[in-house]
Amino acid sequence: METPGLKSNVTMDEITALAKRRGFIFQSSEIYGGIGGFYDYGPLGAILKRNVKDAWWRENVELRDDVVGFDSSIIMHPLTWKASGHIDQFHDQMIDCKVCKHRFRSDHLKDATQCPDCGSKNSFTEPRNFNLMLKTFVGPMEDTASEAYLRPETAQGIFVNFKNVFQSARKKPPFGIAQIGKSFRNEITPGNFTYRLREFEQAELEYFVPDDGKDMDAFREWVDRRKKWYSDYGVKSDRLRFYELTQAERPHYAKAGIDVEYLFPWGWGELESIAHRGTYDLDAHMELSKKDLRFFDEASKTHYTPLLIESSAGMDRTTLTMLIDAFEREISVDPNGKQTERIVLRFHPKIAPVQVAVFSLARNKPELVERARAIESGLRPSYRTQYDEGNIGQLYRRQDEIGTPICLTVDYETLDDRAVTVRERDTMRQERIEIDRLDTYLRDRLRG
Amino acid sequence: METPGLKSNVTMDEITALAKRRGFIFQSSEIYGGIGGFYDYGPLGAILKRNVKDAWWRENVELRDDVVGFDSSIIMHPLTWKASGHIDQFHDQMIDCKVCKHRFRSDHLKDATQCPDCGSKNSFTEPRNFNLMLKTFVGPMEDTASEAYLRPETAQGIFVNFKNVFQSARKKPPFGIAQIGKSFRNEITPGNFTYRLREFEQAELEYFVPDDGKDMDAFREWVDRRKKWYSDYGVKSDRLRFYELTQAERPHYAKAGIDVEYLFPWGWGELESIAHRGTYDLDAHMELSKKDLRFFDEASKTHYTPLLIESSAGMDRTTLTMLIDAFEREISVDPNGKQTERIVLRFHPKIAPVQVAVFSLARNKPELVERARAIESGLRPSYRTQYDEGNIGQLYRRQDEIGTPICLTVDYETLDDRAVTVRERDTMRQERIEIDRLDTYLRDRLRG
Repeated sequence: METPGLKSNVTMDEITALAKRRGFIFQSSEIYGGIGGFYDYGPLGAILKRNVKDAWWRENVELRDDVVGFDSSIIMHPLTWKASGHIDQFHDQMIDCKVCKHRFRSDHLKDATQCPDCGSKNSFTEPRNFNLMLKTFVGPMEDTASEAYLRPETAQGIFVNFKNVFQSARKKPPFGIAQIGKSFRNEITPGNFTYRLREFEQAELEYFVPDDGKDMDAFREWVDRRKKWYSDYGVKSDRLRFYELTQAERPHYAKAGIDVEYLFPWGWGELESIAHRGTYDLDAHMELSKKDLRFFDEASKTHYTPLLIESSAGMDRTTLTMLIDAFEREISVDPNGKQTERIVLRFHPKIAPVQVAVFSLARNKPELVERARAIESGLRPSYRTQYDEGNIGQLYRRQDEIGTPICLTVDYETLDDRAVTVRERDTMRQERIEIDRLDTYLRDRLRG
Repeated sequence: METPGLKSNVTMDEITALAKRRGFIFQSSEIYGGIGGFYDYGPLGAILKRNVKDAWWRENVELRDDVVGFDSSIIMHPLTWKASGHIDQFHDQMIDCKVCKHRFRSDHLKDATQCPDCGSKNSFTEPRNFNLMLKTFVGPMEDTASEAYLRPETAQGIFVNFKNVFQSARKKPPFGIAQIGKSFRNEITPGNFTYRLREFEQAELEYFVPDDGKDMDAFREWVDRRKKWYSDYGVKSDRLRFYELTQAERPHYAKAGIDVEYLFPWGWGELESIAHRGTYDLDAHMELSKKDLRFFDEASKTHYTPLLIESSAGMDRTTLTMLIDAFEREISVDPNGKQTERIVLRFHPKIAPVQVAVFSLARNKPELVERARAIESGLRPSYRTQYDEGNIGQLYRRQDEIGTPICLTVDYETLDDRAVTVRERDTMRQERIEIDRLDTYLRDRLRG
């Protein structure tokens, strides 16, 4: 993949430090030294990720009358993974050193004759396939009969239920089934913070269309919708690209494929893939299960297997993208005319973890504190709010760093003029707004 | 546990059949014969469960300024489960038949001398502990060093992050950390539909309070809040009970405990437990990790370990409760004066998967279809809607069975009077409402 000159202006070290300091993302089980490839979302990160998922769900499920939601289990019957090809083909090639017993991904070895850990020469075994699915055992015995896998993708839960869904929902192609959920892959080299995880969350949309010659139009429409989605939530267009796979890069059964990529600090990385998968997935399950999953068309009285347009997006990667893309370091001028650096997360108001912060100018003035708290609790049912108090400069700095679009300050004047100082994150502009007008003011800026 | 005379008026067979027919819940991987203890949520079930989870989250996180959300990984460092006691104590006692090699839960065997499967006498091994955690292997080797577990509860993800959270969120006790997520238990005998699952979703709230003598008040307040929550969403009070555990029934460290139980068709079953757990959980992690997780109180300049009030609710069980509790079979009189039975799910409007159904009286009248579709798409951003057309009696019957509170019908008169027939699920009352007044009408009934 090419990597053009354009670079993200933030390093992963800065993002990781900010994420921990402000409670977006923590290493999993950190007090026990962590576990590679697993992360926890703190108070702000949990809301941010929830907002990203809700934005995806709203656009692709709730607002569409041709898509239904779904929620399948992580552990499925193992034959699912036989049919999907994951048992036979979802591999990395691994190589062992016979002396130190360490294991390596063969495509990561620079010198195939010497072990990088113990230095032994010609100590390697032949490359062997290493399956990336996480295995477990279900039931009272730990034997091959009880082997099961944690799903490496959510999509198969939709395919095996295809007939149940179209029958109970009384839908006919074109229609889609969508779900958001956890998947697991035993990555040999997890890394880049929450980019390559062993436990991650996917949002997958499987859109089934008739084979009527309009399938490529449907594919293009989904690509356009997904473009619009990233743009609507403010992802910078010069850091996002839709890479069209060549025939050689696509699986043999795929008629078209697009990788959505973001320019991370280490280079371009995949966020989502959109693919025209033909009848491959339903065919595979029909063959192994011997069940007829075809759709019966009442008009033509024929059974047919619909074609599939798939959009598969990583929710952890999208959340990380939102964090990185929002990050800006800028030189600003403080109230005393001094130049200072500020770090600001320019989150879109719909996904910002906190939308409105309400401050009392003084900690020890009950009349200010009460007024500020009353405003905050009045706004809470409609917005994501936070109450705070103390030094205004510090409070602004903190809210900038967590990306809060609007701050309201209750000060001594408020008691007379029934107004607050409103400060906008992006422009740092301040204006005086009457409390009675806040509702309209905020609705225009936060719900637009 | 006592089981009083009061019985649910629905059988599990009816619920299971309705759940499949209408797309609430399907057996996981059904086309491959299913897998015991795992279920999938179909289009209506996925929304219903989502609504139940959102209702919990809204009440316990979004609307409270003393609770923050969290989202930790399913796979954690294995020492987590050493500290929590799950590795050493989370067992069922199992017994093997030495002849047929079958395995049984020893407390389920009626006759401890004869194998119920092969009939052999005195063929049993001594009882052995069988750990209920699902095991997996993380990393390139399948050995004890890479053993990990799927979490059997979400709570531990909160405990190990306690310090990260209170530092980054700048909160002090009393404050709570909440999360909703999947957990796994290798139940020997899963059953009762989605009641006893091997993969299930929990909503857990961990509320930390100072040891200031008001901890039991905090416990009672949470019990009252949870009572109100079930009542607000319409769970029938005579099928719900809050069973207070005696000292003998509680773990030794617990100061108080309440099981929330629902009267399922097979008897009382636990939905949630609310417990005063003292400092047990944080103490266990401090001891094993050697990390200081105590809270530093600025006012008194002392470190202390806060006490913990926990509410742990099963989201699959709560969803199942909503389905069962809403179910009613009643004799009604159809428009021709004939007695018919109707099945109706009396979901609370806030959790009903579909809130408003919009019908066109005729399929083949474009002017009616267009008008009905326009009304449906106009309402969709604000409500969960569905468009349908055809025989009104059948449409009502179908919407009753999925629990839709309001149906709107566009008929020939609509073209003249700009009004629709509105029919309420519960009363079956019909009235004529002008299209311009629909917004107010629906807001009063569905958002109240």
